[in-house]
Amino acid sequence: MPAPPKFTEFIDSHVDGFIQRLADAVAIPSVSGDAQHRQDVFKMGSWLQGQLNSLGVETKQVDLGKHIMDGQELQLPPAILGRIGDDPKKKTVLVYGHYDVQPAEKSDGWDTEPFKLVVDEKTGRLIGRGSTDDKGPILGWLNVLEAHKALGLELPVNMRFCFEGMEESGSEGLDDLIKSETAKGKNGFFGDVDCVCISDNYWLNTRTPCLTYGLRGLVYFKVTVSGPARDLHSGAFGRSVHEPMTDLVQIMSKLVATDGTILIPGVDDMVSTADAEEKKLYVTLDYSIQDIEEAVGAPIALSDDKATVLMGRMREPSLSLHGIEGAFYGPGAKTVIPASVSGKFSIRLVPPQTPDTVEPLVFKYIESEFAKLNTKNKLKIENLHGGKPWIADHKHWNYEAAKRATEAVYKRTPDLTREGGSIPVTLTFAESLGVNVLLLPMGRGDDGAHSTNEKLDKSNFVEGTKLLGTYLYEVAAITA
Amino acid sequence: MPAPPKFTEFIDSHVDGFIQRLADAVAIPSVSGDAQHRQDVFKMGSWLQGQLNSLGVETKQVDLGKHIMDGQELQLPPAILGRIGDDPKKKTVLVYGHYDVQPAEKSDGWDTEPFKLVVDEKTGRLIGRGSTDDKGPILGWLNVLEAHKALGLELPVNMRFCFEGMEESGSEGLDDLIKSETAKGKNGFFGDVDCVCISDNYWLNTRTPCLTYGLRGLVYFKVTVSGPARDLHSGAFGRSVHEPMTDLVQIMSKLVATDGTILIPGVDDMVSTADAEEKKLYVTLDYSIQDIEEAVGAPIALSDDKATVLMGRMREPSLSLHGIEGAFYGPGAKTVIPASVSGKFSIRLVPPQTPDTVEPLVFKYIESEFAKLNTKNKLKIENLHGGKPWIADHKHWNYEAAKRATEAVYKRTPDLTREGGSIPVTLTFAESLGVNVLLLPMGRGDDGAHSTNEKLDKSNFVEGTKLLGTYLYEVAAITA
Repeated sequence: MPAPPKFTEFIDSHVDGFIQRLADAVAIPSVSGDAQHRQDVFKMGSWLQGQLNSLGVETKQVDLGKHIMDGQELQLPPAILGRIGDDPKKKTVLVYGHYDVQPAEKSDGWDTEPFKLVVDEKTGRLIGRGSTDDKGPILGWLNVLEAHKALGLELPVNMRFCFEGMEESGSEGLDDLIKSETAKGKNGFFGDVDCVCISDNYWLNTRTPCLTYGLRGLVYFKVTVSGPARDLHSGAFGRSVHEPMTDLVQIMSKLVATDGTILIPGVDDMVSTADAEEKKLYVTLDYSIQDIEEAVGAPIALSDDKATVLMGRMREPSLSLHGIEGAFYGPGAKTVIPASVSGKFSIRLVPPQTPDTVEPLVFKYIESEFAKLNTKNKLKIENLHGGKPWIADHKHWNYEAAKRATEAVYKRTPDLTREGGSIPVTLTFAESLGVNVLLLPMGRGDDGAHSTNEKLDKSNFVEGTKLLGTYLYEVAAITA
Repeated sequence: MPAPPKFTEFIDSHVDGFIQRLADAVAIPSVSGDAQHRQDVFKMGSWLQGQLNSLGVETKQVDLGKHIMDGQELQLPPAILGRIGDDPKKKTVLVYGHYDVQPAEKSDGWDTEPFKLVVDEKTGRLIGRGSTDDKGPILGWLNVLEAHKALGLELPVNMRFCFEGMEESGSEGLDDLIKSETAKGKNGFFGDVDCVCISDNYWLNTRTPCLTYGLRGLVYFKVTVSGPARDLHSGAFGRSVHEPMTDLVQIMSKLVATDGTILIPGVDDMVSTADAEEKKLYVTLDYSIQDIEEAVGAPIALSDDKATVLMGRMREPSLSLHGIEGAFYGPGAKTVIPASVSGKFSIRLVPPQTPDTVEPLVFKYIESEFAKLNTKNKLKIENLHGGKPWIADHKHWNYEAAKRATEAVYKRTPDLTREGGSIPVTLTFAESLGVNVLLLPMGRGDDGAHSTNEKLDKSNFVEGTKLLGTYLYEVAAITA
């Protein structure tokens, strides 16, 4: 049961309308991380709910409570849950997406107004905040629903929707919702779900579609060294007292080597070395050193071997030093001895690592290195937050359906990738529902999510819409 | 020729008026580092000029031109030059001070309004921004002039004044003024100057007056490591590319040890080791480990030996790491790989070190350590600014006069100290005029210049005024 030709024909003949809908969505600056825009996030949730209702989806707004941001108590944007179809003979697919976006100001370096969708006919790009992350993919699902409604076509599967408005700000409240909704069993929106599909990541490059079956986890640390009761003048006190910056920089220098090796004993060792067969997976991916150098804009790849670079991102842990809180950070030359400084670093985790197994190694090592310094300053280590890595069975029918859909739409076999980043909700769905979760990206690796001039290629929007619809048919076919 | 009793009696009987004048001065928020307050700096300059004129001093406002601050072109506050007395039989003493102050807001943590002088009768403190740095000392000189005018007393020396309004913001324009005024010889304000007296530093502690005969110099460096064209997501790129923070932290960790030793080869070696005789100078100073621990608010002295701690501050170079520009510095947990990061550090210099002799050692070492990292990131080192250390002959009659004056007023011998910080104008006066320069502090070591709740003890204001006046008589006597 491939997708019927009239479905893909409908998509091709209604592109202008789809783009207008995306323009309407982008025009609502639903920035979840800015209290000033909180009303816009609510507006976007209502807009989305209205769209779903008009396309025949039964919906529910779920109040996720309040939280504190920028010193004010704010109402959290609601989760929008949706349900269409209840045929016990059909599989039930749960779709997740988020309707909030990252902040954006023209003055950040955008070439155009970020909240006005610009269609660049020359490059075929749809430029605007949220175009690819994650309004484009959400609207892909709306397009699929519209096509079926307009054509009088029955959906090949039952569908459930879970759209949130806080993804860019830590998905507050969502985990609890998923767990409680799951606990309701058949009385809840997630009771009959057979698989999950999330479209909120990107191709590895600009050419080849991919399916993503793994994400790294994360554990984030703050190491504080405190000395004097207040900042000191370096003239008056330099070489008289133990300086917290001196000690902190010593500690930070002992965490990771220039070549990326994690120097905390035991952390790298937790992960098995890739054997020849696993290495081959990475060798065959459509990727080159040039791809990464273009993505970062400089020839700074850690290796000249593409498989090594890809494994560094996908199947190895990494440690990044993010910065120091409490030290001088402005331009110019300030001669302060900061009283208390906090180094921030995080470790991206891969199976079998978890925040719980890595944390004691980090604490023990830093404490022992600090003791060696023989300083009179004080040390404090905090684990700020963490999330486990996720990996799915990519031989599951959910992935097979997505592979067939990709082959049908793009006429090529998708790459099977793992991502270096984290999407915590993926693991929550996998663990709560106990079903297979698929990441099926719509956009390309150069879309610039979170960056200036975020874009979604028109062809990705159109073919991606076909991909999402075709995937539903392939799910139905493969499980028939 | 000691100071006549009626001089000191006048001071004791006019304290209320002196405090009122200080309150008037503190009430003008002459913050030179804030464009919003530039008009207040001008107001303060005019106020000061008016005071000098009313006390019989011939004055001149010198236009120092314009400069750029906070992106705007601003007129520099004028230098106020003054002259009183032209008796060729008398010595001529040049007094320097500054009428601008550091920024201050109540919200910074002040217990009282910073620009309203508060007289705390219980502690005897005069609290307000500029009370000790440097309005109190400047007003000490005005009090001396007032006493002489009121009593019909002739000043024992000719006096010259040089007051500036940009000391807290780099003394822009002042060096050129001093040089050009000096070049005018007898036609300028500085033509006949025999010695300089600056009251703009502090006692080493809260008990014992001191004379200061040395200041450390400074050289300030910025080390930039650049990699990607923009900030990267640590999930997507961690362990795929060379991270600038990793490399910069390695470099910064190799500059100074926890015990204060400078690790840049040759820098510490430029300075001779103190011999037994020199060490004795520090052993005899009124100072304890408790003093430094109280000053910094924590038991973090580098040594339990007071002479070692004092030598670290006064006669050894120090290297402080101030911070990193371009890295994440806020609270919370941001998972960024910063594209370009600049470490800031400075070295306090002592004779015979100069910025010119230290810079090549720093550049060579950092370049060689960076090469060892084997990174593909780029390195850039900049010398942002510097100033030479200064040391005076403390056996000169100028110091002897100050010592006798201290003994007369405070009934004790002053400590002879060197300061760890820098007052660049000191060196300019010494080099341009070729005369002895004395630092004769009015305030105590806990006054909190530049900090919240800045204060000057009333007793220091009163006895300090006597000290400045008596010093003039001792200069006259010793050179008679």
